[in-house]
Amino acid sequence: MGKSRQSAGNSLFLRNAWYAGGFAEELDTQPMFSRKILGESVLFYRDRNGTPAAIGNLCPHRFAPLDRGTVVDGQVRCGYHGLGFDRTGKCVHNPHGKTAGLAVAAYPLAVRHGILWLWMGDAGKVDYDLLPRFPSLEEDRFHVRRGYLHGEANYQLMSDNILDLSHIEFLHPALGTDAVSRAKVETTHDERTVTTTRRMLDEVLPPTLAKVYKSGEERVNRTMEVVWSAPSNMLLAITVEPVDEAQNWTTGAQSLHLFTPETDTSAHYFYLASLDREVQDAHTADAFAAALKRAFIEEDKAMIDAQAKAIGHAEIMDLKPALLPIDKAAVLARRKLQKLIADEVAGVAANSSQSVSTMAEGTV
Amino acid sequence: MGKSRQSAGNSLFLRNAWYAGGFAEELDTQPMFSRKILGESVLFYRDRNGTPAAIGNLCPHRFAPLDRGTVVDGQVRCGYHGLGFDRTGKCVHNPHGKTAGLAVAAYPLAVRHGILWLWMGDAGKVDYDLLPRFPSLEEDRFHVRRGYLHGEANYQLMSDNILDLSHIEFLHPALGTDAVSRAKVETTHDERTVTTTRRMLDEVLPPTLAKVYKSGEERVNRTMEVVWSAPSNMLLAITVEPVDEAQNWTTGAQSLHLFTPETDTSAHYFYLASLDREVQDAHTADAFAAALKRAFIEEDKAMIDAQAKAIGHAEIMDLKPALLPIDKAAVLARRKLQKLIADEVAGVAANSSQSVSTMAEGTV
Amino acid sequence: MGKSRQSAGNSLFLRNAWYAGGFAEELDTQPMFSRKILGESVLFYRDRNGTPAAIGNLCPHRFAPLDRGTVVDGQVRCGYHGLGFDRTGKCVHNPHGKTAGLAVAAYPLAVRHGILWLWMGDAGKVDYDLLPRFPSLEEDRFHVRRGYLHGEANYQLMSDNILDLSHIEFLHPALGTDAVSRAKVETTHDERTVTTTRRMLDEVLPPTLAKVYKSGEERVNRTMEVVWSAPSNMLLAITVEPVDEAQNWTTGAQSLHLFTPETDTSAHYFYLASLDREVQDAHTADAFAAALKRAFIEEDKAMIDAQAKAIGHAEIMDLKPALLPIDKAAVLARRKLQKLIADEVAGVAANSSQSVSTMAEGTV
Repeated sequence: MGKSRQSAGNSLFLRNAWYAGGFAEELDTQPMFSRKILGESVLFYRDRNGTPAAIGNLCPHRFAPLDRGTVVDGQVRCGYHGLGFDRTGKCVHNPHGKTAGLAVAAYPLAVRHGILWLWMGDAGKVDYDLLPRFPSLEEDRFHVRRGYLHGEANYQLMSDNILDLSHIEFLHPALGTDAVSRAKVETTHDERTVTTTRRMLDEVLPPTLAKVYKSGEERVNRTMEVVWSAPSNMLLAITVEPVDEAQNWTTGAQSLHLFTPETDTSAHYFYLASLDREVQDAHTADAFAAALKRAFIEEDKAMIDAQAKAIGHAEIMDLKPALLPIDKAAVLARRKLQKLIADEVAGVAANSSQSVSTMAEGTV
Repeated sequence: MGKSRQSAGNSLFLRNAWYAGGFAEELDTQPMFSRKILGESVLFYRDRNGTPAAIGNLCPHRFAPLDRGTVVDGQVRCGYHGLGFDRTGKCVHNPHGKTAGLAVAAYPLAVRHGILWLWMGDAGKVDYDLLPRFPSLEEDRFHVRRGYLHGEANYQLMSDNILDLSHIEFLHPALGTDAVSRAKVETTHDERTVTTTRRMLDEVLPPTLAKVYKSGEERVNRTMEVVWSAPSNMLLAITVEPVDEAQNWTTGAQSLHLFTPETDTSAHYFYLASLDREVQDAHTADAFAAALKRAFIEEDKAMIDAQAKAIGHAEIMDLKPALLPIDKAAVLARRKLQKLIADEVAGVAANSSQSVSTMAEGTV
Repeated sequence: MGKSRQSAGNSLFLRNAWYAGGFAEELDTQPMFSRKILGESVLFYRDRNGTPAAIGNLCPHRFAPLDRGTVVDGQVRCGYHGLGFDRTGKCVHNPHGKTAGLAVAAYPLAVRHGILWLWMGDAGKVDYDLLPRFPSLEEDRFHVRRGYLHGEANYQLMSDNILDLSHIEFLHPALGTDAVSRAKVETTHDERTVTTTRRMLDEVLPPTLAKVYKSGEERVNRTMEVVWSAPSNMLLAITVEPVDEAQNWTTGAQSLHLFTPETDTSAHYFYLASLDREVQDAHTADAFAAALKRAFIEEDKAMIDAQAKAIGHAEIMDLKPALLPIDKAAVLARRKLQKLIADEVAGVAANSSQSVSTMAEGTV
């Protein structure tokens, strides 16, 4: 139970990878919390030094959830019979006998950009070079806003959504124009990433966006670059420039979309939005984050949850969906993830050589 | 998905048959709606001519439910990526490429008596002669009232209920007397129908019914004729006459009970009540419909849902229920439906020759 | 259905045993009620003499729940088609034909201590010597308080909880002190019982308990004796005495914990609390029962339901929990029950010879 590293359900997950497990600030108002990650119940708390730690949430004695206990002297104490565990997962306190041989899982954890990153695989293979870094989340330069959604869908359906932004025009009428489907899209990729860039030319932005990007009623070119990194972390960088080259200004925004499997059919969605402090003020950042939240909850989540309900427990690709050119980036990402998982299962070491290629759209 | 014609769950359903899918008036206040029929999600909408149409509700691209989209120029447009479909199910609009090869299922649909009738089987075998016609639903001659219930039970349990009206005395005390169980019952049948007639002699009707049938405190004979048609459409015609032959009057009422499988363990219940405009006024029709609705919801549905919950996913006949003479019509109907389904699965063409026979009660 | 004696789900239950099915007083305010016991829906009602009876709750005709019907002349009448059954389960009334061959299950039922005890096994093997008797529930000598909880857990997880009272210190801070884990525990057992005695020496009771046991701020020795009887009935007797031998007083309390499987993953928890009328007044009995209720609902049930949710449908012992010395009594009880069930399945008669042994703690 507590020490099992097998995934729940039928899906295989990539294990030797970093997943967003929460925000560090979640431990500011509570001594601990648990969240199911890749089918495992994980407990987050701060150790004696105040450093976040993650261990298995089920006591090995009776499988009582440790999150019903207390944190005492940097140990997690089970609320049922009092066993205590430290950040290595070892039992260090047993009011009823020996501690030897008693342990829960310990998850390598790193904090970056205020995110609690979990390594869900072999602790001997922890690779800090794979730990995501997003320069646009450095808070001295950017206004950063954070949010969380629970999705009733497989995490890959949520990645697919961001990897094909053609949906903006239809699902988010307040955030898109017909320039979206007229856009030119380019997709590049290497072993663990897919980058897809959509250039929307000569549009007047809808009011909400015009305020964020300070474009007024000016005709602009808008570029949206999405970088997917395995397993399911995505950075969306938006750049807005006037069509009139005589003018000389650029604005933009970044958003980070981190999808962490909870089970085969549900996922955690951590998102962050950032605006450049030199260009936009805090009030604009708040408005941008609020617009994203509304779109995510009322439009993306509503649609993806409904899609997932229709699909049920099946794997979407097994149902032979009609593939369109717009699916290229999502299909590439799914294939890469599938290969990484297959290699991991087969014991093949991850290969850091990166072969970048550019493919024309329409040849998925 | 969208084009699959297999039923969900373990049950086999009769496919080459007309099922009530909704009321035409449901499209008066909304441009479209979806309903699960025989395990398939079906979308109802009006085409450019205002004619109701039914197509598969899941977009073949990403299986997004089309009912989250819009109707534009008689096409259904997916709310996720904008694909458009016409009433034949063909994709006729794709902002992202070709439409060739993209389609959802199309269901033959006919409107009669304000009911949206769906042919759930082979489109090449659509048989309009099988389309139910009920003269007592012609609105120029009858007051017609419509209603809908959702049943948490297999549709055959709901048919069984109507096919054995001996339950009125026990389940609907306001609508029955002990003349119900003293009644003489005759049952006849042919290939696709079962007719069971219950003659209840010499009773004084309870107040609610006495008003509907204008019988006051008079002793009357009441006849209830139920005609079941495969798969699960039932007409109940009630006639009331005075016992005293010196008097010369007849009143009555009709109700139609259409049970459409949603899944193996749930069903749609569309019902219609009609009273003769020459005999009863609109107010009496409202009172009759209200009494039916109360009995259906508080008594029939409550009992059948509880029965279905007790039975679970099992087929009731597999549990070897004790068969009583009162079950004769229900058992006949189940056997006929079973044979029609078996023939359909075996590819045997439906045979329109009708062999009518009359069996004595008690020889189920 | 109605007559099946097989258990639902995967678990085997001990059938030739008495289970608490309800309180006799539940039939004071209603003519009948049903409860699922060992996966079977059981109907409780009073016969013509006012004597409680228990029969299968599903009518053999259509499996309609009889609890939706009425009690007429000591018969249960089905609310669907009017069949009537007496306390032997035989159909004694059929408005539609013969009664021969129609029956539901009948459960041997005995009332003792206001509890409706059900024999869930072979009626030919009813053993009244096994019917539990608890002298501390005799109402002329004791204040008796009753309560009921529904547990979303396997009944054995609930027995385990009482069989290891070391949890009091951690789960019930208002009812324990560190004397709990310092306590000396002895466990004895015979074929159908396990007795575990915990002596907590030299503690000052927390305020709530000090009031119940009238110990004030006195240092006391507290003894808790738990007697488990197969399958899952437990008596907890508490004795409190002053450490100062010069004083000469004793107080105490008893509580009865009866766990009856509903399904594999849920159980009924009937509990009774009793205080000696000569020592404590009715007000103290009310306060004691209220404290128990609060602890049971907010602490025990919350923890055990969470534990059961973590375990899911698995058998806890199959998950290889870490066994501690404190688990000794619970493990013994589980083994005895497992052996009794295996013997029953194998057709071995229960053996009334009793071999009592005392084992040192720590040798589970």
